[in-house]
Amino acid sequence: MSKDKKFVESITSRDVDFPQWYTDICLRAELTDYSSVKGCMILLPGGFAIWENIQKGLDKAFKATGHQNVAMPMFIPESLLQKEKEHVEGFAPEVAWVTHGGANELEEKLAVRPTSEVLFCELYSKIVRSYRDLPKKYNQWVSVVRWEKTTRPFLRTREFYWQEGHTVHETQSDAMEETLLMLDVYTKFLEDYLAIPVIRGEKTAKEKFAGAEKTYTMEAQMYDGKALQAGTSHYFGTGFAEAFNIQYSDRNNELQYAHQTSWGVSTRLIGGLIMVHSDDSGLVLPPRIAPNQLVVIPIAQHKEGVLDKAYELKEQLENDFSVIIDDTDKSPGWKFSEYEMKGIPLRIEIGPRDIENNVCVIVRRDTREKITVDLNNLNSEVTRLLNEIQENLYNTAKERLESRIYDVTSYDEFKNVADNKPGFMRAMWCGKTECEEAIKEETTVTSRCIPFENEQVKLSDKCIYCKEAAETMLIWGKAY
Amino acid sequence: MSKDKKFVESITSRDVDFPQWYTDICLRAELTDYSSVKGCMILLPGGFAIWENIQKGLDKAFKATGHQNVAMPMFIPESLLQKEKEHVEGFAPEVAWVTHGGANELEEKLAVRPTSEVLFCELYSKIVRSYRDLPKKYNQWVSVVRWEKTTRPFLRTREFYWQEGHTVHETQSDAMEETLLMLDVYTKFLEDYLAIPVIRGEKTAKEKFAGAEKTYTMEAQMYDGKALQAGTSHYFGTGFAEAFNIQYSDRNNELQYAHQTSWGVSTRLIGGLIMVHSDDSGLVLPPRIAPNQLVVIPIAQHKEGVLDKAYELKEQLENDFSVIIDDTDKSPGWKFSEYEMKGIPLRIEIGPRDIENNVCVIVRRDTREKITVDLNNLNSEVTRLLNEIQENLYNTAKERLESRIYDVTSYDEFKNVADNKPGFMRAMWCGKTECEEAIKEETTVTSRCIPFENEQVKLSDKCIYCKEAAETMLIWGKAY
Repeated sequence: MSKDKKFVESITSRDVDFPQWYTDICLRAELTDYSSVKGCMILLPGGFAIWENIQKGLDKAFKATGHQNVAMPMFIPESLLQKEKEHVEGFAPEVAWVTHGGANELEEKLAVRPTSEVLFCELYSKIVRSYRDLPKKYNQWVSVVRWEKTTRPFLRTREFYWQEGHTVHETQSDAMEETLLMLDVYTKFLEDYLAIPVIRGEKTAKEKFAGAEKTYTMEAQMYDGKALQAGTSHYFGTGFAEAFNIQYSDRNNELQYAHQTSWGVSTRLIGGLIMVHSDDSGLVLPPRIAPNQLVVIPIAQHKEGVLDKAYELKEQLENDFSVIIDDTDKSPGWKFSEYEMKGIPLRIEIGPRDIENNVCVIVRRDTREKITVDLNNLNSEVTRLLNEIQENLYNTAKERLESRIYDVTSYDEFKNVADNKPGFMRAMWCGKTECEEAIKEETTVTSRCIPFENEQVKLSDKCIYCKEAAETMLIWGKAY
Repeated sequence: MSKDKKFVESITSRDVDFPQWYTDICLRAELTDYSSVKGCMILLPGGFAIWENIQKGLDKAFKATGHQNVAMPMFIPESLLQKEKEHVEGFAPEVAWVTHGGANELEEKLAVRPTSEVLFCELYSKIVRSYRDLPKKYNQWVSVVRWEKTTRPFLRTREFYWQEGHTVHETQSDAMEETLLMLDVYTKFLEDYLAIPVIRGEKTAKEKFAGAEKTYTMEAQMYDGKALQAGTSHYFGTGFAEAFNIQYSDRNNELQYAHQTSWGVSTRLIGGLIMVHSDDSGLVLPPRIAPNQLVVIPIAQHKEGVLDKAYELKEQLENDFSVIIDDTDKSPGWKFSEYEMKGIPLRIEIGPRDIENNVCVIVRRDTREKITVDLNNLNSEVTRLLNEIQENLYNTAKERLESRIYDVTSYDEFKNVADNKPGFMRAMWCGKTECEEAIKEETTVTSRCIPFENEQVKLSDKCIYCKEAAETMLIWGKAY
């Protein structure tokens, strides 16, 4: 097999140069390509098909929890964007502006949406009158634009695809319930479909969304130990409602401001899939999100009966799985490398001797294990193996995450771990933004969240930076 | 029932003021709403759900014919847009331009895509090398922007949702086959799902797409007799390939320019659904495209057992159909009007006496017919009725279309029909753009297509305008 492996030999090893390995996979697995618009990527069929599966899974969960899809304009008039002060300060520096329509200069310039809170607020202020109109739970699947200076495929691009949910509620507790519900929906999807374990918690004041009262986050750990903010869910209180006059008559016929939320995940999740599961042979995809779960590769396909049998297997497998076949005249070795690069979870090899013995050889993408399978049990064996891969990928990522969270109780220790150990840290914090900023500036490590799961943890009494009384524990990490 | 019908009484009659009736339905059926960005609409849940069903149906057909989805950037650098001369002349006058990113002026201004030919061409020029790479058949579902002066919901808006397929092929005949295949895919979908019959044919040189060699179209006739261009499919020849240098080594190892196509349909189809099927009580939707096919309305729901029975019916129907229930305390009459306005194909009424008799009353949205149905046969009766509605809507539209195509053999007759009879005309034409332009200027009637179905039709020897020798027959109509 090795002599055909030109393809694979030329990608960088993830242990040698992780960023280069990442870029190699993005391009060589044909997920994405550069465009002539600096900082904007093309999603190729392989990349877009993953996004379609993410959409399908999440959209179903959104609808099951009572959300409806809409489409808001991609433009925001400058005056509308400026209505909520914190929000515009957060986003204005990275807005792309449309100033001309055809040959004419516009009377008011238009932002290409960086996010759509203000558009939803404007709509809600028109259609919400009474508590009977509440809640409204809308979502949209669109692309947004943020004029970032440095970009990386999937992780940070000037245009990116995402979904943004925007909801409006009668009471604070309804809105807070929604905020946390959507964090749960995301978490379940990440763990069950993407096989990505996360640490959940609340963002600090410094890190929360511009205009939010509270931001909740899922933080995933990549193979190189860095954090990826995989999705966020925000509780807005009545801040936007006051700025946009979203008022309703309550059950006592008194006017009240409505409570709002928003929440989103993006194509960044594809970057997460790559950086959590993939290896030096290319992409590794969890079976539940893989656009193609199986590839059938005929061996010695010029021999009588081989191609026919291969097509027969494909047809039989198609009843239960997504299957492709490669019947081109390329060598089996080339094909093996090609579909390893593309992350197809199982490869099914069928040759003359296999046919004689009524078996085929199945090779797992995750462990490279070869299994000879009786063709009478093929579909049930494939089901079993796909489930095993899904579980194995999750467990591997989970163990790695858990083994790379370090408790530190002094700033020296913090800096030492930051310099030498990939992973996250847990450390006590006084609650002051100044300490958080100083740590970031001195170490490039940022606060990821105040984790839900560890609310009671008390590693020491003191903030590791200022040594004043600690208020809470924080998770820290270098981040994408 | 009539005393509750405030809701319906306030929409304009389609025979009194068709444009106002149309706008009334768009807003009152809650399909769309105006935004603060002039000319851009909001797709509300009711409108977006129809678009989702259109997407679902067409996307399946695209994939079944070997197409793959991608996502290209929403921006096009000015220099890239200018590479194909006819194309840029066609689109530049209505392009929205991004000139600033954050606080900085861009070095090169960026068009917000009005269509994406040039982006696909640039990609294809990179990834197509050999005949082995062909065909590439990509599609994307996105919104595009054209800075139109006058706009109408769904029919002409500055931003609109659509799909655009872009393919590249080895030979002219492969590309032409694709062009016509996609026209067939569209036609089948329009007829089978949207219940909209169309006339298909080729656009004249004046009306074809900017940069295309041939444009094929589906023309639908609205209730007011006007034409709606419902979708187009273009054969580009090698024009774009030459401008963008899309060359491949052919089977003799010689360099050749590739042949291309593009094809698209948009949210304009929702406008077509309204203007073909709907009536003075509101929206009428064909069951195969309706987001909700059934609404269950309990009658005297305060009486014991009614609500329970209504929920039971809903649950039973959900196995086969998309069903909603309205158990609010609004009056049944209000509910009847509401769901007629929203175009739900069948309403199921269940009250105490019905329960006693083990029946329910089903009311068809299209004919208003009331049918008493034995609850033991409910699902099969509903299936039958939905099929009947689907067929009835198609047949009604088909008969109307066929009865309103007028053959004219002189320009006086042409003008007389144009002024007095809603519908299309068939008339002979010399093939010169000047005649076509003069007719448009003098009558506002435009050429719709040289129809496939009538290639052999010869109404006379002469062009109705210049009276010189006729080259072909054309379909004419006033258009949206």
